[in-house]
Amino acid sequence: MKVALFVEENYEDLELWYPKIRLEEAGFKIVLLGPTAGQTYKGKHGYPCKADVSFSEISKTKFDAVVIPGGFAPDRLRRSPEVLQVVKETFSQGKPVAFICHGGWVPISAKILRGKKVTGAAAIRDDLENAGGIWHDAPVVVDGNLISSRSPADLPFFAKEILAQLL
Amino acid sequence: MKVALFVEENYEDLELWYPKIRLEEAGFKIVLLGPTAGQTYKGKHGYPCKADVSFSEISKTKFDAVVIPGGFAPDRLRRSPEVLQVVKETFSQGKPVAFICHGGWVPISAKILRGKKVTGAAAIRDDLENAGGIWHDAPVVVDGNLISSRSPADLPFFAKEILAQLL
Repeated sequence: MKVALFVEENYEDLELWYPKIRLEEAGFKIVLLGPTAGQTYKGKHGYPCKADVSFSEISKTKFDAVVIPGGFAPDRLRRSPEVLQVVKETFSQGKPVAFICHGGWVPISAKILRGKKVTGAAAIRDDLENAGGIWHDAPVVVDGNLISSRSPADLPFFAKEILAQLL
Repeated sequence: MKVALFVEENYEDLELWYPKIRLEEAGFKIVLLGPTAGQTYKGKHGYPCKADVSFSEISKTKFDAVVIPGGFAPDRLRRSPEVLQVVKETFSQGKPVAFICHGGWVPISAKILRGKKVTGAAAIRDDLENAGGIWHDAPVVVDGNLISSRSPADLPFFAKEILAQLL
């Protein structure tokens, strides 16, 4: 099974790497989707991460889930029609769409949050609610195949729920 | 159950944070041991990590395992008699002592590697062998309660083995 994980400049280091290594530990194949394949992007704290597949090539692969880390990367990710397209498709196929912290900006722009229970970084609560989301303050919030968490401290809960849906 | 995890300047970011969050996900309590409680140390790539307990207070707590991340932190950690003492004690009680990358410098100085199968960063192979260790090149090497890995890429294997011994 293949899981898509998005990378861009200023991703939150642990919000990308913890799900990546955790899902690998559980036997999944992780594909890092970034603007340009082979290019290295730096986390907010400086950890480097190389993209496997360019945004322009996303549609060639089928994914069983997508994971969207936070930091300020989502501010760039949401501008890519290919990113929004794969998020929309994965969601409409009933497969897990997981986002953490500022990652919520991407499903907002993919327009899939209306009437859905969500959480995220406190700073983007207004954005999530204005997009029709129903805010909950909890380590992990699940509404069908939408999984959301608030911050790196929630990563144990976030990962557990992604795995529960995939296994 | 309590697991000790060492922190110092220039720790390898993922080699500390992945085991930390992974063991928390599995329900363990992680105690970050550093030179000074409450002080924040920076990873090699910049991720900050605050110590819970000072080295001088280590002996007040009993731990069920110790985990030693790499980076250049182990070059400092091995200078602390309290660090070496808790590593020696944990080892002699048959509880897991896990180290990754340059983390092997600490068990070298705790003098517990003679005749033991180990791995680590290629750069410290000579140090491990000169301390009596028997080098193996594998994602995780287990000799009784000694668990060792080479680099961040081995983290899924490293974590799985620590959990297997603790559970």
